[in-house]
Amino acid sequence: MTTIDAPIELHPFYCPIEPAIHPRAADQERDALTWAERIGLAADDRRRTLLRHTRGAEFYARFAPYADYDGLQVAVRWVYWGFIFDDRRCDTGRFGDDPERFPPMAGAVQRVMDAPWCDPGDDRYSRAARDIVLDMYRLRTPTQARRFTDAHRAWLFSVTWQVADRARGHLPDLPEYTALRLQTAGGAPTIALLEIANGPEVPGAEMDSPAVRALTEMAIMVASWDNDLHSLHRELRESSAYPNLVTVLAHHRGLPRERAAVEAVRLRDRVMARFLRLRASVTARPVSEALRIYLDCLGHAIRGNIDWALAVPRYRGIAAHPGWAEVPADPNPDPLPIPAIAWWWDDHL
Amino acid sequence: MTTIDAPIELHPFYCPIEPAIHPRAADQERDALTWAERIGLAADDRRRTLLRHTRGAEFYARFAPYADYDGLQVAVRWVYWGFIFDDRRCDTGRFGDDPERFPPMAGAVQRVMDAPWCDPGDDRYSRAARDIVLDMYRLRTPTQARRFTDAHRAWLFSVTWQVADRARGHLPDLPEYTALRLQTAGGAPTIALLEIANGPEVPGAEMDSPAVRALTEMAIMVASWDNDLHSLHRELRESSAYPNLVTVLAHHRGLPRERAAVEAVRLRDRVMARFLRLRASVTARPVSEALRIYLDCLGHAIRGNIDWALAVPRYRGIAAHPGWAEVPADPNPDPLPIPAIAWWWDDHL
Repeated sequence: MTTIDAPIELHPFYCPIEPAIHPRAADQERDALTWAERIGLAADDRRRTLLRHTRGAEFYARFAPYADYDGLQVAVRWVYWGFIFDDRRCDTGRFGDDPERFPPMAGAVQRVMDAPWCDPGDDRYSRAARDIVLDMYRLRTPTQARRFTDAHRAWLFSVTWQVADRARGHLPDLPEYTALRLQTAGGAPTIALLEIANGPEVPGAEMDSPAVRALTEMAIMVASWDNDLHSLHRELRESSAYPNLVTVLAHHRGLPRERAAVEAVRLRDRVMARFLRLRASVTARPVSEALRIYLDCLGHAIRGNIDWALAVPRYRGIAAHPGWAEVPADPNPDPLPIPAIAWWWDDHL
Repeated sequence: MTTIDAPIELHPFYCPIEPAIHPRAADQERDALTWAERIGLAADDRRRTLLRHTRGAEFYARFAPYADYDGLQVAVRWVYWGFIFDDRRCDTGRFGDDPERFPPMAGAVQRVMDAPWCDPGDDRYSRAARDIVLDMYRLRTPTQARRFTDAHRAWLFSVTWQVADRARGHLPDLPEYTALRLQTAGGAPTIALLEIANGPEVPGAEMDSPAVRALTEMAIMVASWDNDLHSLHRELRESSAYPNLVTVLAHHRGLPRERAAVEAVRLRDRVMARFLRLRASVTARPVSEALRIYLDCLGHAIRGNIDWALAVPRYRGIAAHPGWAEVPADPNPDPLPIPAIAWWWDDHL
């Protein structure tokens, strides 16, 4: 155990996307917290405070700044659910620390999401999840609801991997960590909520195309790595058992923490730059309006995640806002040499 | 440990669907086994024999008797892959017996399926999976490929649950076992192969509708429970650590094995009867030709699974063919009182 004497200084973020937030973010928060009390997710003052401190409504109001109110409300409810489920069931405790207990619990919750017409039983998380997914089916197409619930499984599946690694004391190297981190931050379900919030269904031929898959994954990767940077100080202070991009780089490359943080920013900026280039190339093609909205919101997601994180109590202890960088810390346009993601740079996309 | 003195007698199967098989099943087997050798899944005589004994080509030729040749070949390759992966990586051994090792291995394989444009590394299963999924993208729509790979994750996710239950010595009760078994037999990816084999894409508005989801799940449930009946004698003889519909019923209801087997058939027949009623109701609506083909093949899947299982060396040790029942063992049309699946009987479907 080393003593942490000072916060790591955050480097400016390269994110040439304007900030935006839904004008009714405050109403969204009020409505979602009322729902949370009604459904049993905020049964006492402590839980209510925990929920409020996630600023889940602000978070998603930044992802989908032009959403319709009802769609955004369903998305926001899941964001609150996701934060609290992650804290209570995935991170630590009798499920998060136990690879024999996490999968049956996660499997039961996922069953309710796959088939919200089920009786969810007594579990408060299952009951709340059912309520959210039923609203998705009422408000949106079955395909949009199913995209969300399939993405939700991808998250929980990756958490079984993370729980297993933690139990055996395994710190992944960068290639492993990249494949793992693509899912463990819950990015896939969070991004699948864009269609729930916004409304228009992106045609399958577009949504499932390799180019849009790559763009979706890149937005998730940048936001997830950014969360690693945001939460680094908290995690070091709490001597978290979680891998983090900076600790993974420091450990496997033998770098001091400060140099590892610089390297993390360089990796992140290369993905950010590739995202912007590929997105410009895809939107120059004749694509649907629904896809344009979706791709626009992928950018808001990256930017909104930073704006939210730099103020939220969840990441308490980070340094002052580092400001914004005009250019990537590493301008290299070549593919990152990481097997799981090098294909994002394929010419045919 | 009780001694098993005689095979349990199988009851006649209620399955009023005619048998059918693709006329080129033998060619399919030859081509798939050649591929398996080339890709490294059949590196020695023992492995080749194991593969051949699964009769994977016959199996899927019964599921999709009118498929086009190339589509069926991709499906058949995955069936061989799935049988051998299941035996070597899921059932027992250093992954299947270890809830700390299974999820990282499964997560890495699934990553290659999600993004077959990745470098799959040296693992033979990952390399073969990549080859299969790339063929899906070449031959079918991205949506069809993605439906398959998402279904594949649902299987592997459920195996993490099964591995965890086995490690802690937990025998599920009927409601738990039903939710688990819906996925652990690999039914979801196997059924998602129907579109790969047949070609036409079922529109999302149909495929993701609750009625078609229910029909898909019912076909999977009947086939998976049938596999429990087929493999029962082998599992009892090998004192398998797996739950099985009959052992679950025997244990939790305190029934002798023979009465539990009768009860299992009654449950299975109630789902079979509901499947037939709901399918008739859906096909009476103005639905797409692609959906008609898909729903037709769900029936072939149930029937083909039985025809295959009663002859395959995989389930060696079962009794003689029990014949066919004209009527369900339990004609009760009410929902089964099992929370995860009672919604299959909803009137609004």
